[in-house]
Amino acid sequence: MDHADDAYRSELERLRTEIDAIDLKVVDLLAKRQEQVKQVMALKQAHQLPVYHPAREEDLLYARRRQARDAGVDPDYIEELYRIILRQSRVAQSGHMARTGIRTGAKVLIVGGYGEMGRYFEKWFAGAGYEVRLMGRNDWQDAGALCNGIDLAIVTVPIAATDDIIRRIAPHLPPSAVLTDLTSIKKTPVDAMLAAHQGPVLGLHPLFGPTTSTLDKQIIVATPGRDPGSCQWVIDQLSAWGAVIVTSDPQEHDEVMAIVQSLRHFATFAFGRFLARKNIPLARTLEFSSPIYRLELGMVGRLFAQDPSLYAEIIFASPERRTLLKEYIGMLNDSIDMLDTGDKSAFIAEFEKISQWFGPFGEQAMRESSFLIDKLIERF
Amino acid sequence: MDHADDAYRSELERLRTEIDAIDLKVVDLLAKRQEQVKQVMALKQAHQLPVYHPAREEDLLYARRRQARDAGVDPDYIEELYRIILRQSRVAQSGHMARTGIRTGAKVLIVGGYGEMGRYFEKWFAGAGYEVRLMGRNDWQDAGALCNGIDLAIVTVPIAATDDIIRRIAPHLPPSAVLTDLTSIKKTPVDAMLAAHQGPVLGLHPLFGPTTSTLDKQIIVATPGRDPGSCQWVIDQLSAWGAVIVTSDPQEHDEVMAIVQSLRHFATFAFGRFLARKNIPLARTLEFSSPIYRLELGMVGRLFAQDPSLYAEIIFASPERRTLLKEYIGMLNDSIDMLDTGDKSAFIAEFEKISQWFGPFGEQAMRESSFLIDKLIERF
Repeated sequence: MDHADDAYRSELERLRTEIDAIDLKVVDLLAKRQEQVKQVMALKQAHQLPVYHPAREEDLLYARRRQARDAGVDPDYIEELYRIILRQSRVAQSGHMARTGIRTGAKVLIVGGYGEMGRYFEKWFAGAGYEVRLMGRNDWQDAGALCNGIDLAIVTVPIAATDDIIRRIAPHLPPSAVLTDLTSIKKTPVDAMLAAHQGPVLGLHPLFGPTTSTLDKQIIVATPGRDPGSCQWVIDQLSAWGAVIVTSDPQEHDEVMAIVQSLRHFATFAFGRFLARKNIPLARTLEFSSPIYRLELGMVGRLFAQDPSLYAEIIFASPERRTLLKEYIGMLNDSIDMLDTGDKSAFIAEFEKISQWFGPFGEQAMRESSFLIDKLIERF
Repeated sequence: MDHADDAYRSELERLRTEIDAIDLKVVDLLAKRQEQVKQVMALKQAHQLPVYHPAREEDLLYARRRQARDAGVDPDYIEELYRIILRQSRVAQSGHMARTGIRTGAKVLIVGGYGEMGRYFEKWFAGAGYEVRLMGRNDWQDAGALCNGIDLAIVTVPIAATDDIIRRIAPHLPPSAVLTDLTSIKKTPVDAMLAAHQGPVLGLHPLFGPTTSTLDKQIIVATPGRDPGSCQWVIDQLSAWGAVIVTSDPQEHDEVMAIVQSLRHFATFAFGRFLARKNIPLARTLEFSSPIYRLELGMVGRLFAQDPSLYAEIIFASPERRTLLKEYIGMLNDSIDMLDTGDKSAFIAEFEKISQWFGPFGEQAMRESSFLIDKLIERF
């Protein structure tokens, strides 16, 4: 090792030691920041004030971006870091949100309470101070006692059983009880609830599974049935836990969901089925692939890591859905001509029509997915 | 405003001021860090040493995770922040990587040089000190002069024209020149290059488009044709710019790409086509959706924001690909029975077979995509 080499190494060492010292201070400051955030939370909790404050977050991001720009640092980079830092504060706060009860002490009956979704909502309601009763398939002899004084009944059973269970449980409920279901279709369950129960009726469809740890920004579709005023506290409660409530009517809900769930999952199922049938070299295709293929294949693999009966329920939920899927297959058959003749111009003409139909969403999707692809590259 | 309110507000104000002071210091330290990283880069550049040092990054992450744990901060959170901080250092370094020339001064001819991919590689080679010559469709009368003394010829023209252009350009090249193409199929172009050129032959397929700003971690498939020793500097050059080189033979490449590109893009095209044909309420479906639908729909929308002729080329690249796509449609037709009878158990049995075929990839895909979904929630 010559002298120049030596000098290089010691200079590199010196710079790395300085960087380490900076990093030590950064993490130390982030730990102190966490302590301060906890104090803010405790203070707000004591005064029963909301913990999330979007305007404060925006001000903070603006100030840090400006500081970055003045210091010659890329403001987007600093904003990215601070969005993570702010999310971390919100995570700390979500423990508080979970304990927020809009009607603490009210009595909640979960019919199908021993299923995964039942257990999931039991945890939320019980955690916020509600009196929760679970009812399973063997508890019908106690239905009268279980329904006594109930303020909210939630039916969460398989789609095929929903209407029947609604008809059986409704006569036991107090007329003032809010009756809801969590089924992924809404027209027939809401009709069944309106027919079987005199009081307030509210259809709900949580667009997430029971493995979701936080309700933060999770979507629940609400399809009001009867007496929305009396149902409002249920919606307020779900919102207080962080969920976003989208209101719809049962008919529109079912039409949109046929696309959003049934068609999408069926198309993904078919894609995975073909890969398996052709026995393609999965690992090798991943080595050969841009990050976006990894992301797309991940979407397919993800489906098959989940519960098949859940997807069977979604795909086969109604005759309308199955008709839609057959229309989809029919449209694919229309493409065979184009493939037989190798007609690129027909493909391009069709492509351009579809691009126009997508409109500005295409550009937006490019931006969003490029952002995610960067994340994927960073991480893996 | 009563006294308690007043005390609350001033206490909240005090805590926020403290948090702001912490954040001011954090950004200040990150700016100082950037200065130190620049010095490290300058030092390495002066000593012609590689800038990226994975082991150093891992050590650094380990130290920061440990510090976080000791301070009661979530180590995953700190690692996430530091991955972004480290990526930012690499971005600063990529300017240096782009200027790294393995055979500076060598003469590079880009046939199809006025197309988008041609322009893209012109920028990289010229930026690293190569003498780059572009050849377009109107330059054939100057072919002799353009090919004179060329060390590397890159053919990047539409698939349908590739074999012909290879046959026309090869006789003008010095026998020692490395001949490569960038076509997304490899069997026929590599065969054409081997037949037309006596010297080194290397098939290349960059798995990214000309809008990619950095080559960092971008994949290029290399299918060696002849005299790999003489082609090695080309591979070293692409690696020096950050690309990951995956070696394959042309046959395997084409089989894998039929799945990775053709089938995947065709399935996405068909999905988008169906949405457009049914004229589904796009914006409303997004309101009704979990983040994963937004991500999946984004993958579809993204396709239609791009150049249709690029996708026509990929999908219609060869008769083998078109046959594969027809097999895919055939398999979908096999599902019609299941849909007609509403046979859930057949669906579940098939689903379970496919799950088994995916094996551990399914779980891995769940983890990866859950990570990305969190990112999506954070950002939008």
